Amino acid sequence: MAKSNLAVIVGSNRRDSINRKLAHALARLGAGSFEASFPRIDDLPMFNQDLEGNLPPEAVRFKSEVGSADGVLMVTPEHDRSIPAVLKNAVDWGARPYGKNSWAGKPAFITGTSPGAIGSALAQQQGGGEALRQGGFQASA
Amino acid sequence: MAKSNLAVIVGSNRRDSINRKLAHALARLGAGSFEASFPRIDDLPMFNQDLEGNLPPEAVRFKSEVGSADGVLMVTPEHDRSIPAVLKNAVDWGARPYGKNSWAGKPAFITGTSPGAIGSALAQQQGGGEALRQGGFQASA
Repeated sequence: MAKSNLAVIVGSNRRDSINRKLAHALARLGAGSFEASFPRIDDLPMFNQDLEGNLPPEAVRFKSEVGSADGVLMVTPEHDRSIPAVLKNAVDWGARPYGKNSWAGKPAFITGTSPGAIGSALAQQQGGGEALRQGGFQASA
Repeated sequence: MAKSNLAVIVGSNRRDSINRKLAHALARLGAGSFEASFPRIDDLPMFNQDLEGNLPPEAVRFKSEVGSADGVLMVTPEHDRSIPAVLKNAVDWGARPYGKNSWAGKPAFITGTSPGAIGSALAQQQGGGEALRQGGFQASA
């Protein structure tokens, strides 16, 4: 049986992101069980409903990458007690336009890290909740 | 006594945003009690911690506009059960860099509308919660 493809989405646009390092480490750990792809999100324009009639090419590419995956893993820091704007933007592009929800039916998982003791617990709760409500299901780790 | 200045932040970048119309209607209704300003958020670059050492001019301007206000009113739609990416981005810029939190100590209010019956209740809960945790206090309307 072919291995499942997991779209690993890193919720940070920092050059030295520790969550990107964690994401790649997780992909290496799971290499025997799944293939990992890393859809880029830092070049997505800010979501604007006015753009839905003529989707930006970056959004078309991102939605295609998510759509072709068997599942989604978000690895994210926490900004101001929720997911960073760059990841919220990817969530919004994935969910739209109406009827073209790239998250629908996908198993979605969320994890993350930070230098502090609380990790990114609240971002995981919020981001995971959003993925869940978009039609996937969620396990926090 | 001089009227208070309320920074009214519209959480939509749509040209025909009904929340922008609501925001201006609220400002007109309250004109006897407060002065309203409308800090722009749709030109803010995506928040990136790597930019904190040399803040983009749009972020400097936005933080100055928020910082000089006596209070904040967010008027926002709801995207995927939380505030739109464009507003999350403004929240993140306002809160950073560390020690330069433009929201600190400001009374913050949140409201919004949508064509649906639920309005933007969940976005209000989340966005208001973020403002609250940033050091202001919150009343949902």
